[in-house]
Amino acid sequence: MTSTEINVVKIGGNVIDNPEALQSFLYDFASMPGQKILVHGGGKEATRMSRDMGIPTTMIDGRRVTDAATLEVVTMVYAGLINKRIVAALQDLGCDAVGLSGADGNLIPASRRPAKPVDYGFVGDIDPERVNAAFIKTLLTHGSTPVVCAICHDCHGALLNCNADSIAAAVAIGASRIGSTRLTFCFEMPGVLTDIADPKSIIPLVTASTFEQLRQSGVVAKGMIPKLQNALKCADAGVSCVRICSAEALSGDIGTIIRCE
Amino acid sequence: MTSTEINVVKIGGNVIDNPEALQSFLYDFASMPGQKILVHGGGKEATRMSRDMGIPTTMIDGRRVTDAATLEVVTMVYAGLINKRIVAALQDLGCDAVGLSGADGNLIPASRRPAKPVDYGFVGDIDPERVNAAFIKTLLTHGSTPVVCAICHDCHGALLNCNADSIAAAVAIGASRIGSTRLTFCFEMPGVLTDIADPKSIIPLVTASTFEQLRQSGVVAKGMIPKLQNALKCADAGVSCVRICSAEALSGDIGTIIRCE
Repeated sequence: MTSTEINVVKIGGNVIDNPEALQSFLYDFASMPGQKILVHGGGKEATRMSRDMGIPTTMIDGRRVTDAATLEVVTMVYAGLINKRIVAALQDLGCDAVGLSGADGNLIPASRRPAKPVDYGFVGDIDPERVNAAFIKTLLTHGSTPVVCAICHDCHGALLNCNADSIAAAVAIGASRIGSTRLTFCFEMPGVLTDIADPKSIIPLVTASTFEQLRQSGVVAKGMIPKLQNALKCADAGVSCVRICSAEALSGDIGTIIRCE
Repeated sequence: MTSTEINVVKIGGNVIDNPEALQSFLYDFASMPGQKILVHGGGKEATRMSRDMGIPTTMIDGRRVTDAATLEVVTMVYAGLINKRIVAALQDLGCDAVGLSGADGNLIPASRRPAKPVDYGFVGDIDPERVNAAFIKTLLTHGSTPVVCAICHDCHGALLNCNADSIAAAVAIGASRIGSTRLTFCFEMPGVLTDIADPKSIIPLVTASTFEQLRQSGVVAKGMIPKLQNALKCADAGVSCVRICSAEALSGDIGTIIRCE
């Protein structure tokens, strides 16, 4: 561990699908001092593209199945269109962005998810221990800002679609091996809310034990559960600060902090 | 200049469009010792994709016009699908590939081609002097193998479609600032031929003066003219060895060598 501080920031579809929101976020991100890494999700462009190309979308339990044709679409859209659009915009803002998938530089080796009980196709599960921290260090030391999309590989030639929150968590855990790392999950709400209809009802702190209470009482549900599990995993694995907030709050301190205890 | 030797290899559509030929080429490329860089063209996938998506292709004087919709397609196909497919395959072969566009790490700044006399749209012209050799050096020193697609940027947020031979030439000239650099253009013929119907009629050496003779006599014509001009530019700019050959001949010495004199 060195005294380096590394900021890992994750943005999702709500920012990516809105050009003005994306530009505003990238301005704030480019303005952050020090070493940083951006992880981005996919947004709706892959769904639109699949539809335009006549590729049927198969969902199981609300999750998309990545068959071979869908893998090609998400590789094109995530690693090509969205990633390079972000890189070019950050370069314009004076931030020396380098766009990467998890295959590039063997950044994030993944394992294809077993076909049972449910075959989700070309979907990867990540072990944060396998993240290539040495490559991250080389890029950060050079002054580069990695911009990472949610495509990984199995190290045997296959690309794999991954969950962007899991990528962000793995990258932050990997980065924490080379320096004190903060992880910020930006999403469409100002934080974890006690009342989803009231944006002011932000829960300032979630710990492993309060998470269980929030889950049992139904205050957190659906997509917030894996997001908080990812956040808790990071806090447990040595990421120094984990925060969930809105993209507009990146440079502030509003949001929910997640700690082990 | 150091004693480092860097191999820059360019492949085009004839290899990219043929999965067996591509795999065989990548095996040979991965087996090359030392520091190396791969530059790849686009192949026919972008044309197919445009057609599937109902994007009309406009050609002026036999050259494609890159309007905004076409730029999105080539960014997806070149920087996404083809680039990551190659990176994953090289990783499987033990070569630590890192896929890049010219926007990543500000690798290849370009200028949008003026709209007069002909407006080709989002097309970039490259000044090899502006290639970011420091970034190449950082990656090569780390042990990475850059895999570069033919998309650049104007440093002001716009991506630009570029000619892959020009990218290869610029990268080789940039790399020659950090070490002795060899450039190999792989294409569909075994070299520059005196008789296009006879693959054995390879011209072993082309210089600036023999190029003029070959052009005036009509032995070289069409696409071979800019290819040889690019090759001569590299030889003139300090690339130690420039060769044009077939992809199958990568590890051999068959082909045409291009020298200033």
